[in-house]
Amino acid sequence: MEKTIRMSHGAGGRMMADLIAEVFVPTLDNRYLREMADAARVEASGGGRLAVTTDAFVVQPLVFPGGDIGSLSVHGTVTDLAMVGARPLWLTAAFILEEGLEIDLLRQIVRSMAEAARGAGVAIVAGDTKVVERGRGDGLYITTTGVGVVPPGIEVGPDRGSPGDVVLLSGSVGDHGIAVLSRREGLAFETELRSDSAPLHGLVETLLAAAPHTHALRDPTRGGLAAALNELALSSGVGVEIDEAKVPVRPAVRAACEMLGFDPLTVANEGKLVAFVPAEEADAALAALRAHPLGQEAAAIGFVTADHPGMVLARTPIGGRRIVDMPLGELLPRIC
Amino acid sequence: MEKTIRMSHGAGGRMMADLIAEVFVPTLDNRYLREMADAARVEASGGGRLAVTTDAFVVQPLVFPGGDIGSLSVHGTVTDLAMVGARPLWLTAAFILEEGLEIDLLRQIVRSMAEAARGAGVAIVAGDTKVVERGRGDGLYITTTGVGVVPPGIEVGPDRGSPGDVVLLSGSVGDHGIAVLSRREGLAFETELRSDSAPLHGLVETLLAAAPHTHALRDPTRGGLAAALNELALSSGVGVEIDEAKVPVRPAVRAACEMLGFDPLTVANEGKLVAFVPAEEADAALAALRAHPLGQEAAAIGFVTADHPGMVLARTPIGGRRIVDMPLGELLPRIC
Repeated sequence: MEKTIRMSHGAGGRMMADLIAEVFVPTLDNRYLREMADAARVEASGGGRLAVTTDAFVVQPLVFPGGDIGSLSVHGTVTDLAMVGARPLWLTAAFILEEGLEIDLLRQIVRSMAEAARGAGVAIVAGDTKVVERGRGDGLYITTTGVGVVPPGIEVGPDRGSPGDVVLLSGSVGDHGIAVLSRREGLAFETELRSDSAPLHGLVETLLAAAPHTHALRDPTRGGLAAALNELALSSGVGVEIDEAKVPVRPAVRAACEMLGFDPLTVANEGKLVAFVPAEEADAALAALRAHPLGQEAAAIGFVTADHPGMVLARTPIGGRRIVDMPLGELLPRIC
Repeated sequence: MEKTIRMSHGAGGRMMADLIAEVFVPTLDNRYLREMADAARVEASGGGRLAVTTDAFVVQPLVFPGGDIGSLSVHGTVTDLAMVGARPLWLTAAFILEEGLEIDLLRQIVRSMAEAARGAGVAIVAGDTKVVERGRGDGLYITTTGVGVVPPGIEVGPDRGSPGDVVLLSGSVGDHGIAVLSRREGLAFETELRSDSAPLHGLVETLLAAAPHTHALRDPTRGGLAAALNELALSSGVGVEIDEAKVPVRPAVRAACEMLGFDPLTVANEGKLVAFVPAEEADAALAALRAHPLGQEAAAIGFVTADHPGMVLARTPIGGRRIVDMPLGELLPRIC
């Protein structure tokens, strides 16, 4: 293990996973954390189940095509609750402001949070503000925490994937990462790329109504689809095999990735989900996803297998097979 | 209103209150936020009441006499839940790490969080880590969010103070602020000053058992006792009158304040509470506080009055009366 924190420790890949596995999980040890789900499910008195999740947002720039740090922080947290099948109810927001931040920009971002919260049907019920000196922050960091309720009968978790499951993806990959990067680096593409940032609780509700035995859900954010599939494969102790040609990638994202030497499977998304669904419910699940505005381009991209547990393989367009590794570290820092 | 964020916007005084009142509360508008309590109380299905609170911690230095940013983040959040009478159950923690942070220091701080959580009987059930470039952070920021349960029958809120209430303070003021400042500035005092950082849920439980009709609780952190009393006076629409001579201040804190020109009433605390208790339960409440290890120096420092609503007055040791103003802004930045 390194002696000091590097940017790669935050990039959603293997270095981050190692940091979490070595420094955080064993020290703060409890069964909720060990589950490594997008949200922790805890038992409330009276037998109800709550889901709790938290995320710090450090995206740069603060405003990007398709969203800003405010809408992103609400969407990300709502979506993390949805990934364990929870109905999002309450959010909290803590702000770390850098001395010198324009208050008009702060207003704009808080308005954007309010709109995102209204759109997702959640209330931001508690908050905190801190200010740090110029050069000790980057305009604005927001940490949102969400609390939701898991309806009775819903059992979705990253460890429940099972051989035979069909792997569904709700739409094209890489939009968020490339949109943020293009704004940051001043890259211009013929087609404007927008972040796919969106709250996925409605899409999940639709999916679970059609496929109530859905095993596992994950939103492929930092580290992209590659990281999400590897995490689910590891948690569930199963192998995953996907058909690379079936993964939707927008032409502009593909062009940007070719230019920059990125693998679209490792670029961040914000409004997409991957689902492991039992084969007998897969057709209904895919139809339900496609009927929802946030899942119109959904595709069945592969299957879960008992072979090569913990490993993700991709059939390449030219007929070969390659290992889809957990990304090591830094690809695009400060993407969320 | 200013056009850019200044350090004073984070100092717990009037400038912070104005920022929250103008930018955050009306935009994110809902009845939970408007209450301006230390924790929001929300209704869970089945009639139970949950409390939710969040706090970003940006204290500098990261380790100080009596604690570190890790223990502080757990204690502060547990205490905020206790301020609405809630039993703390689950915490989340989001870390913003600066590139270059020593991983051994991170380990030490996470261990300290784990110990504090065990001590307070709460589990840290979800987390997140982000990394920002050198010069975009300050080693480590931690945002903790807490969820607790409010037992049936408990009705404590910042708006419930009532004329005739006795104002109780659980111990000496200014210890945390002066301890952090002394480490930061390399000041040496004859007696070592330690932060009073502590989780106050046990003290509150003891208090509420003895004085179940306690009206209001607040922990006087940023802005000190002066800010806490002003906030309660405003929320409850009552006046407060205290006897300055009855407010416990350690000799070393008093000496430091005299040297630096600070009013001890405006210096931050982390393990103290102020309570508005109906007169008929005040003696029992004070005895209960004093019988608890964290309230041995508790004192009755004043009373709530229908006169001068929203205003805090202090009788001075020489017999005069002065207005205890809400501090304007920056006294000690980055104190929590």
